[in-house]
Amino acid sequence: MQQRIRILGISGSTRSASLNTKLLHALSKLAPANVEIEVLEGLEKLPFYNEDFEGENLPPSVVELRKKVSEADGIIISSPEYNYSFSALTKNTIDWLSRPYAKGVLSDMPVAITGASPGVLGTVRSQNQLRQVLHATNSKVLSRPEVYIGGAHAKFDTGGAFTEEAGRKMLIELIDNLATLIEQTRENQPSELAS
Amino acid sequence: MQQRIRILGISGSTRSASLNTKLLHALSKLAPANVEIEVLEGLEKLPFYNEDFEGENLPPSVVELRKKVSEADGIIISSPEYNYSFSALTKNTIDWLSRPYAKGVLSDMPVAITGASPGVLGTVRSQNQLRQVLHATNSKVLSRPEVYIGGAHAKFDTGGAFTEEAGRKMLIELIDNLATLIEQTRENQPSELAS
Repeated sequence: MQQRIRILGISGSTRSASLNTKLLHALSKLAPANVEIEVLEGLEKLPFYNEDFEGENLPPSVVELRKKVSEADGIIISSPEYNYSFSALTKNTIDWLSRPYAKGVLSDMPVAITGASPGVLGTVRSQNQLRQVLHATNSKVLSRPEVYIGGAHAKFDTGGAFTEEAGRKMLIELIDNLATLIEQTRENQPSELAS
Repeated sequence: MQQRIRILGISGSTRSASLNTKLLHALSKLAPANVEIEVLEGLEKLPFYNEDFEGENLPPSVVELRKKVSEADGIIISSPEYNYSFSALTKNTIDWLSRPYAKGVLSDMPVAITGASPGVLGTVRSQNQLRQVLHATNSKVLSRPEVYIGGAHAKFDTGGAFTEEAGRKMLIELIDNLATLIEQTRENQPSELAS
C-alpha cells in the first residue's frame, strides 16, 4: 500500500477568477488517490513581512501558516506573473515561511512550481525568478518538468478540469515527480526507530 | 536658476529600524538644494494587488499613491533583500503603480535603485531581479552607478547621516545622475507651446 502524501498548494493570486488558483484545484483532481493537494486560503490576510513582528508579536495568521506547512510533505506554488516576476502575495508567503533565520519550514521542503497566464509565455519569467528565491530558502525544488501554462483561459472546462491534453500530461508528471521526491526525502531521513 | 526636481523614495521595508528607509532619508539630506526627496509612507496599508479592485472598486490608498507618483519627476527605490530578491512590499507597490494596463504611472518614469543590508553583498541579487521588473514597467531605469550598500548597519551616525566616504560619493552620484536623467526627459518631451 502506498503511503499517504499531503501537499499544500500556494496560489499567488486571490483574484476571484484566478487562473492559478484554478490550476491548483485542477491539479488536486489529477492527483492519484494517495496524494492530497489542499489549496491554502487567506494568504492575503498576512501582513507584509516585517522582522519587528518576529518573537512575541508574531501574528496568529503567521503562526498558523507555519504550523500547517511544517506538517505538510510538499508544496506546489502556482503564481501569476506580474511585471515579469512573481506576485507580491507569492513572495510574502515565502518570506514568512522562510523565517526565523535557519529555522524556516521551507528548508529541505520538496517544492514544485508552475504558473498559468492568458499569454503564450505561461509565466516563464516569473518562474525563473522564483527558482532563485527557493534556492535561498534551501528548498528541494523540482527541476522537471518545467510547466508553463500559456493560453490558460481556454484550457479549463466549466467544472474547472484541465482539458488540454499535452498540458495535462505535464501536470500529472509534475505531481508524480513531486511525490517521488517526497518519498526519496522520507527514505533519506534518519528514522527515530533506527537507533 | 536650476529647475526644481521632486523625487519620491520607496522603501521596501517598514521595519522600525529599517536600513533602507534610513538610506532614503540620508539620500534626501545629500541632495542639492533644487532636488527634494520625499520618502513615501503607509505602503504597507495597500492591499495585495488584485485586478478585481481595478475600476470602481479601487481602494482610496491606491488612487492616492498613483496620483502622487504621477506628479513626481522621478523615483528612488531602496529595497531590502529577502531570500535573494526584493521584498513583497516593494513588488506590491510597483505592481499597483504599473496598472491599469498601458496607463501605469511608472511608464517612462526615471527610476534609480539602491539597497542596503548588514551583509557584504548589499542587495545585489534583489537589485538584479528588480531591474527585470522595471524593464517590464517601461521605466527609465538608471544603469549607473550601481549602489550596493553592504555593512550598512555601521554606516550611519546617530542623526541618520551616511558616514562612509566611498559610499557617500556613490549616493551623491546616484542623485546627480537621476536629476540629469529627469532633465533630459523633460527636454525630450514635446512642449504644448511648440505647436
